[in-house]
Amino acid sequence: MNVYRYEENPLLTPLDVKPHRDNFEVIGAFNAGIASYNNEIIMLLRVAERPISPDPDIVLAPVYNTATQDLDLIELRLDDERYDFSDPRVIRNKSKSATFEYLTSISYLRIARSKDGHRFTVDEKPFVYPSHSLETFGVEDPRITQIGDTYYIYYSAVSPVGVGESMVSTTDFVNTTYHGMIFGPDNKDVLIFPEKVNGKYYALHRPTTKSTGNPEMWIAESDNLLYWGNHKHLIGLREGMWDSGRIGGGCVPFKTERGWLELYHGATLEHRYCMGAVLLDLNDPSKVIARSGKPILEPEADYEKKGFFGDVVFACGALVEGDVVKMYYGVADTSMAACELSLQEILDSLEPVV
Amino acid sequence: MNVYRYEENPLLTPLDVKPHRDNFEVIGAFNAGIASYNNEIIMLLRVAERPISPDPDIVLAPVYNTATQDLDLIELRLDDERYDFSDPRVIRNKSKSATFEYLTSISYLRIARSKDGHRFTVDEKPFVYPSHSLETFGVEDPRITQIGDTYYIYYSAVSPVGVGESMVSTTDFVNTTYHGMIFGPDNKDVLIFPEKVNGKYYALHRPTTKSTGNPEMWIAESDNLLYWGNHKHLIGLREGMWDSGRIGGGCVPFKTERGWLELYHGATLEHRYCMGAVLLDLNDPSKVIARSGKPILEPEADYEKKGFFGDVVFACGALVEGDVVKMYYGVADTSMAACELSLQEILDSLEPVV
Repeated sequence: MNVYRYEENPLLTPLDVKPHRDNFEVIGAFNAGIASYNNEIIMLLRVAERPISPDPDIVLAPVYNTATQDLDLIELRLDDERYDFSDPRVIRNKSKSATFEYLTSISYLRIARSKDGHRFTVDEKPFVYPSHSLETFGVEDPRITQIGDTYYIYYSAVSPVGVGESMVSTTDFVNTTYHGMIFGPDNKDVLIFPEKVNGKYYALHRPTTKSTGNPEMWIAESDNLLYWGNHKHLIGLREGMWDSGRIGGGCVPFKTERGWLELYHGATLEHRYCMGAVLLDLNDPSKVIARSGKPILEPEADYEKKGFFGDVVFACGALVEGDVVKMYYGVADTSMAACELSLQEILDSLEPVV
Repeated sequence: MNVYRYEENPLLTPLDVKPHRDNFEVIGAFNAGIASYNNEIIMLLRVAERPISPDPDIVLAPVYNTATQDLDLIELRLDDERYDFSDPRVIRNKSKSATFEYLTSISYLRIARSKDGHRFTVDEKPFVYPSHSLETFGVEDPRITQIGDTYYIYYSAVSPVGVGESMVSTTDFVNTTYHGMIFGPDNKDVLIFPEKVNGKYYALHRPTTKSTGNPEMWIAESDNLLYWGNHKHLIGLREGMWDSGRIGGGCVPFKTERGWLELYHGATLEHRYCMGAVLLDLNDPSKVIARSGKPILEPEADYEKKGFFGDVVFACGALVEGDVVKMYYGVADTSMAACELSLQEILDSLEPVV
């Protein structure tokens, strides 16, 4: 696969983003949703910020408080035997080690704008900030689907009761309307198709199951974008391949003459995240036609391999112009990059699914 | 709480149910959904059947095969070190011990009928049998909501990709229409309200989350019973109390003058399952008014304490006549029983939730 990575990569790093409050540091500006609006390219960044601890023996865990409408900073001593601090992203309670107790940072959504798609300016203020009881640990990994003049922005809403997918909409990237949680926990990596297919809206989603099963891609339908049902399992993990550990939707699916093309992420059990593609039937997206045997993009550049959580390329949006797929993607859970791929080459590389 | 247990308890046991095929034994006839139809009381049993293994060293795991439309029997040697057989309900793969690999039995739904609500006759054939790829490990724990002349029957659909909630409807308890999976995995204990509230349908549901959070009760809304959204967390576990380990909806919620009354199950971490009640606002069921400080029913009778999985009372349906709540409930994951409670006494026992 021929991949043209932009010379400006990484396009944005945490150093380009001013913390939204004192005594916080930006540790990530990544996994951005992408939209075209008003002759600009909007990169809706997930910004992760960490409270700066005055004491090296204390970790501060930020939690949004719905009563005070402000962040609480929970102090945890690094020598507190109840907690496991080994994962830089989360703090686990050792007595229930499969789940996390706190996050080490708070994520919110912030706009970066560009005329040319290469050089971006970051807005001064957050755009979507945690504001509900289902978002007290933050909002993450937005995707944007444009339908008519409305942009539907949906994201992981993280709180102590689980991770679900909530949605706002906007027509101007200034004001938003909140639509509540559209997929209950545990769910993330939702991707809403940009038009109805056979009279119904469709969305990809990624439940994380506890009883049995793996982190795999499902599809659901709706008639109003708010209520979803007829859930079906779409594609699963593939042993020994690049998507053997977990998979989830990436970019908003787009129409090609051969079918709906979804650029999705897959990771191995060693957490190496790549991007690949799956082709779905134009008239019934719950039917899988073909899929990438090999990734279309894998972490190879230095900025993709090293960072807060390395060896990760994770795209949440792409712009398609003729044969050119401009894919914007988070790198190493830290920064943003972009590349261009040939649509024809992606389609030709897919292997039939029988 | 005054509980009048029927003298005929247990009303039905596995011995009353003929296996649906040769070389199978019925190990459970329990957790039945309840409905009034045609001057009869319908008990829609969850029947669990186990293949009889000809070899004591081999366990047979039944799995529905959608291609052959028949059950496959997977042979597992008890001395196979890869598997953990210690839980009588499931077979775990030791390398991923939090999830299960197979069930030891296949569950389906079968009708029992009664004129007096005490003595039941079991139909000859299954009523809802696994028939889709999302049901290959069985269908479990049905609930029935009557809206007009239609009975909506929804149940846990269990397969290797997770446990979700699927739905069929019937008007005659002979023919059914399949409506697909209405709540994606992991989810169970769905309870659909019997009428619209402020123009919307509501359902309780119980996600099982992996990332963080506990098995707790949520509420969602819909305009067509098929697509669900606006998910909200409703009530959580309570440390040190009877519902400290897991909770989930039980009976279909019913209207009282003080609010919607939901009879739900709660268990401790030691898996002792009791029934209690929660009162929800008449005009907005996502608002909690009051809740049981102590159970309204706990496993005390011999048939409740001993069985396939003991110390369990688990109701999926009740009939309310004036002040009398006739609650039908599964006991010890084995049989069915029923009791009568005073509605007034339940309401008076609830403690305000602030």
